Amino acid sequence: MEKIWQLQSDFTAFMDSVEFVRTPKDLYEPVAYTVLQEGKRIRPMLCLLACDMFGGKFDDAKYPALALETAHNFTLIHDDVIDQAPLRRGLPSVYKQWSTNTAILSGDAALFMAYEFALKTPQSADCVSLLTKVMREVHEGQRYDLDFETQTEVTIPEYLEMIRLKTAVLMATSLQMGALIAGADEDDQQRLYDFGIAIGMAFQLQDDILDCYSDASVFGKVASGDIVENKKTMMLLTALDLADPQQSARLRDLFSGEIPINPQKKIDEVIAIYDVLGVKEAVERTMMEYFHQAFSYLDRVKLPDVKKLPLRQYAELLIGREK
Amino acid sequence: MEKIWQLQSDFTAFMDSVEFVRTPKDLYEPVAYTVLQEGKRIRPMLCLLACDMFGGKFDDAKYPALALETAHNFTLIHDDVIDQAPLRRGLPSVYKQWSTNTAILSGDAALFMAYEFALKTPQSADCVSLLTKVMREVHEGQRYDLDFETQTEVTIPEYLEMIRLKTAVLMATSLQMGALIAGADEDDQQRLYDFGIAIGMAFQLQDDILDCYSDASVFGKVASGDIVENKKTMMLLTALDLADPQQSARLRDLFSGEIPINPQKKIDEVIAIYDVLGVKEAVERTMMEYFHQAFSYLDRVKLPDVKKLPLRQYAELLIGREK
Repeated sequence: MEKIWQLQSDFTAFMDSVEFVRTPKDLYEPVAYTVLQEGKRIRPMLCLLACDMFGGKFDDAKYPALALETAHNFTLIHDDVIDQAPLRRGLPSVYKQWSTNTAILSGDAALFMAYEFALKTPQSADCVSLLTKVMREVHEGQRYDLDFETQTEVTIPEYLEMIRLKTAVLMATSLQMGALIAGADEDDQQRLYDFGIAIGMAFQLQDDILDCYSDASVFGKVASGDIVENKKTMMLLTALDLADPQQSARLRDLFSGEIPINPQKKIDEVIAIYDVLGVKEAVERTMMEYFHQAFSYLDRVKLPDVKKLPLRQYAELLIGREK
Repeated sequence: MEKIWQLQSDFTAFMDSVEFVRTPKDLYEPVAYTVLQEGKRIRPMLCLLACDMFGGKFDDAKYPALALETAHNFTLIHDDVIDQAPLRRGLPSVYKQWSTNTAILSGDAALFMAYEFALKTPQSADCVSLLTKVMREVHEGQRYDLDFETQTEVTIPEYLEMIRLKTAVLMATSLQMGALIAGADEDDQQRLYDFGIAIGMAFQLQDDILDCYSDASVFGKVASGDIVENKKTMMLLTALDLADPQQSARLRDLFSGEIPINPQKKIDEVIAIYDVLGVKEAVERTMMEYFHQAFSYLDRVKLPDVKKLPLRQYAELLIGREK
């Protein structure tokens, strides 16, 4: 695990050295507020671990890693406006702390800083190209997510494609970018990308489970927010798949947003149905399938196992995470 | 003028050949709706004319030119949300036609398309770097513009710096990018950039004059929208500079947004004060100073005059424009 802590600590020190606030302050302060919040730095860590694995240097990957983190935060700033999510990592989201206009403008500014960071590498054209492609895909995912709110029927494959775009591709691209910077060949870049997709899918499914059973104090978001906001997550879609007609009708009513019910009562009733149907266990099974699929891709990377160990350990940490 | 019409026609044909709508349609249709609206294509034309001037090929500049146009439209889509501007080029703006959420997401998508276009050139790293820098500056300008709404005192130099960032730098960068693609040396790139700044300043000052005296049917925006929305433009700032204490107090009252007055009455009263003070003539003088300054930069470009003629003619068209 030492490699993981060392990269995490080097990256934190590097981020502390970067100047995020420029003039005008009210454009850049919300960027610093968001990017510098305590976070897990998953995307930079995936980039740095992939680079290190193939013998690349920290100094070559640090700016691309920061680009990925900053671009990720850009998507969060805009996404919180779209979802009207008041909390992010336990703090007021940018639109709530400042305003929607500030969230739009400073979100955009975060993205341009991300591009500036991506340009600070000898492989800048490749990094910018990967960043552009993945950001487009993330937005396609956000669009599907938004469409699902008003779409009466969402299938499980549609949902999985949405989270692939919204969550998994950025984790996959972070790994690919690290491998590319270290000079890995295209086959190995692709294997790490595929590993990242599978880990990203497992990660998002775990998020769906955690959101359902979380309380705000540990999760940093609204408690069972997905249920309160009638979100069609893997939990609901799996429940509808397993439910009898009566349970299904009741779930559809509860998620229609049209019956008057106290939010806590609604959460309790939904979770009671999930528990009867074994929804948590079913989603965990799918999650573990992705997790194991991920390692089959990692196994095929043309490097000795000892080189792959830190990334393997990091993926295990990620899925075993408490929050 | 033949060179101008030819480039305009070639660029229109090129744009018609580009596929803007991808899947999901509801993400990309608002991009196509905005980018493909009839427009003057000023930024692509500046890029193409600069490239042509130094002997560069249309095919080398067409994608960067499209990147500039698409990035410009990205800024418009977000800016219309921020300004709550219901009309753009005489049509409903994206947030009005769809929703704020769609304007945020599809605006972002437009930007990623712009980056994709900028990457389609051998000088992709340079083009992406210029695009990133200029987009950051445009947002700094938008931030100042937003701050001015609540700032009681805005000076003329502060206003000029805001429009330099919000409008002029993108025109300047369009010229620089065209020159760079054609292989112009850095001195000439800088001269074209400076030419573009001055033209951009003149252009925006003209816009301030036109907004004041326009009606919606020809201008494609709300009639005298800047007065209705209490915008501190060069017209108001110049008026405050020239006004006696009584006129100044009345203008401040009228632009405070706090006195109940019929919008048309307010427009009439403001314009009557402007007319007495000779505001239009004063702003026109400043505009013409920028216009002449622009040509002094163009004169210093190391090319025979005949090569500079189309760009000179285009700048004259731009400032002599009817709308």
